[in-house]
Amino acid sequence: MSTYWSELTASLEPYVPGEQPKDRTYIKLNTNENPYPPSPKALEAIREAAGADLRLYPDPTCDALCRTIAAYYGVTKEHVFVGNGSDEILAFAFPAFFSARQPILFPDITYSFYPVYARLYGIPYITVPTDEQFRIDPQTYAIPNGGVIVPNPNAPTARFLIVNGIKEILETNKDRVVIVDEAYIDFGGESVVPLIAEYPNLLVVQTLSKSRSLAGLRVGMALGHPELIEGLNRIKNSFNSYTLDRLALAGAIAAIEDREYFAETNRKVVATRERTTAALRELGFEVIDSLANFVFVTHPVKAAEELFAALKERGILVRYFNKPRIDRYLRVSIGTDEEMDALLGALREIAG
Amino acid sequence: MSTYWSELTASLEPYVPGEQPKDRTYIKLNTNENPYPPSPKALEAIREAAGADLRLYPDPTCDALCRTIAAYYGVTKEHVFVGNGSDEILAFAFPAFFSARQPILFPDITYSFYPVYARLYGIPYITVPTDEQFRIDPQTYAIPNGGVIVPNPNAPTARFLIVNGIKEILETNKDRVVIVDEAYIDFGGESVVPLIAEYPNLLVVQTLSKSRSLAGLRVGMALGHPELIEGLNRIKNSFNSYTLDRLALAGAIAAIEDREYFAETNRKVVATRERTTAALRELGFEVIDSLANFVFVTHPVKAAEELFAALKERGILVRYFNKPRIDRYLRVSIGTDEEMDALLGALREIAG
Repeated sequence: MSTYWSELTASLEPYVPGEQPKDRTYIKLNTNENPYPPSPKALEAIREAAGADLRLYPDPTCDALCRTIAAYYGVTKEHVFVGNGSDEILAFAFPAFFSARQPILFPDITYSFYPVYARLYGIPYITVPTDEQFRIDPQTYAIPNGGVIVPNPNAPTARFLIVNGIKEILETNKDRVVIVDEAYIDFGGESVVPLIAEYPNLLVVQTLSKSRSLAGLRVGMALGHPELIEGLNRIKNSFNSYTLDRLALAGAIAAIEDREYFAETNRKVVATRERTTAALRELGFEVIDSLANFVFVTHPVKAAEELFAALKERGILVRYFNKPRIDRYLRVSIGTDEEMDALLGALREIAG
Repeated sequence: MSTYWSELTASLEPYVPGEQPKDRTYIKLNTNENPYPPSPKALEAIREAAGADLRLYPDPTCDALCRTIAAYYGVTKEHVFVGNGSDEILAFAFPAFFSARQPILFPDITYSFYPVYARLYGIPYITVPTDEQFRIDPQTYAIPNGGVIVPNPNAPTARFLIVNGIKEILETNKDRVVIVDEAYIDFGGESVVPLIAEYPNLLVVQTLSKSRSLAGLRVGMALGHPELIEGLNRIKNSFNSYTLDRLALAGAIAAIEDREYFAETNRKVVATRERTTAALRELGFEVIDSLANFVFVTHPVKAAEELFAALKERGILVRYFNKPRIDRYLRVSIGTDEEMDALLGALREIAG
């Protein structure tokens, strides 16, 4: 606490990301990173961009990257916004579309950054209960609100809501913005990007951090009606003209254009997830069906916190949330087959 | 205008950066970029970082970069904050230290992003008049306020306020934060970083965009009392956990460590600035003494807007601000000697 802080600063409860320990080498299954390296074409594009032109500002409109994403999704660049990770896009979207006037809605169990954004901007919120299996019921979003944000698949539960479920939320909230956070969509879920033509209130947010193995590059994207994109640009251009550096722009373009590598690595992650899910169930774990690059698991006997600690001792990091309703669960990112074998071996020892 | 925008979004007047035209190749003297490429060691560090580890999140605390900056300035890392360009740091500093309660102060002629930040966060402001020669008088900052921001050297005037002048502003504003924006400090001015030990209300903001030729990499830094740094971190961690990507971190560390290259390129920019200033005066221009990497010039007869257009036609871009008090002036970035010769030749034709 400092006398120089604003009241806002003093009131905040900042987000705490998954730990990035430096004390030893871990099998890192705690922050949903992709176990495979980025596309070699993306790395090559970055190396090529690392030249004299770095003395020059990047394109503040990120025109080339927006066009690449537009071509990928078959829309125009006016439907595309990019940012320094999807977290930054969400940080722009909250003040762009939500306000203190009416509470926004998001699931009770979800990405824990949402309430942090809300507090930063003084936006009230209501957490809408998921059912006992963490399922989102679209009907529960038909209450008065100033906006909705739903991740799909949800984190950390990995639950996927079918497109018709999202449609129902969009239909009952036509006069306010519904953000669908698709950070994990590329691992088997069906994106609602095609719905942006039909629903001017829909903003879809995605990231290159997971399915394109570029967590270290910080690039996210949003797709929606051009009016929503303009709203994001108004906030962004009141905050920072140049949010994406020249290297991130070059790498992101090459990564999105390399569809073959993307399909191949995602296929591998999905195969490992299915194999891991089956093996965990054999070990007695309950595993929620996942369409993400992580699984959310609980053991009928062993406490999650103990499992977390025992795994960490064995050099395996997973994520444990000491929070109501989910403190019996662990979130485990999908690594390579070899890494998951190490996890399964350790769990066999600990809980077998 | 959209019905989906918040009132805030609709009310904003976003910042407009200098143009980045793509229609032809210009001699670009309009956005204060450095004419020399970044340190070869920085480029090499970036290329080395462009590998498999990009699949992993960067260090959210930017520990290694903060330590490098701390070592450079002889402080501890608790005195250092880094961001995605100094613009992002300012965008965090406004809500961290200023509020709607009391107006903040900044010069009437200054970086035009300051009022944009203030509007974004609902912070009232008073612009303090500079004198007829755009000089800042520290005594004029001894009025009730909720914070102060002063760039030194100022932009776009290039005027430098001596350290004792900054001290006077710090002394008369001891119970609120004074931000000194030193984006252009390395071209001959004296930094007030050493004063952070004495003044817990001082935050000094710098950037790698100008003197380290890395506008395309987006890295800025702030130095101040650990309480101020913690305030910035509270806002940042409520906004985006990972604002600097792995490539920016690697490149910035190498650039700051390469003191020799830094000294050499800055020496060249300063020499060219002095030569250009003398030549422009010979051509009849009034040139404000500059300690930045640009000059602010006016011609007694030729209108600035006409000069701007005539230069653009000849393939030379400078910056013209159609604003009260400065609409007779042009801001001209310092390029290479060759580029400045081209500028001088063109001006001889146009205004000679």
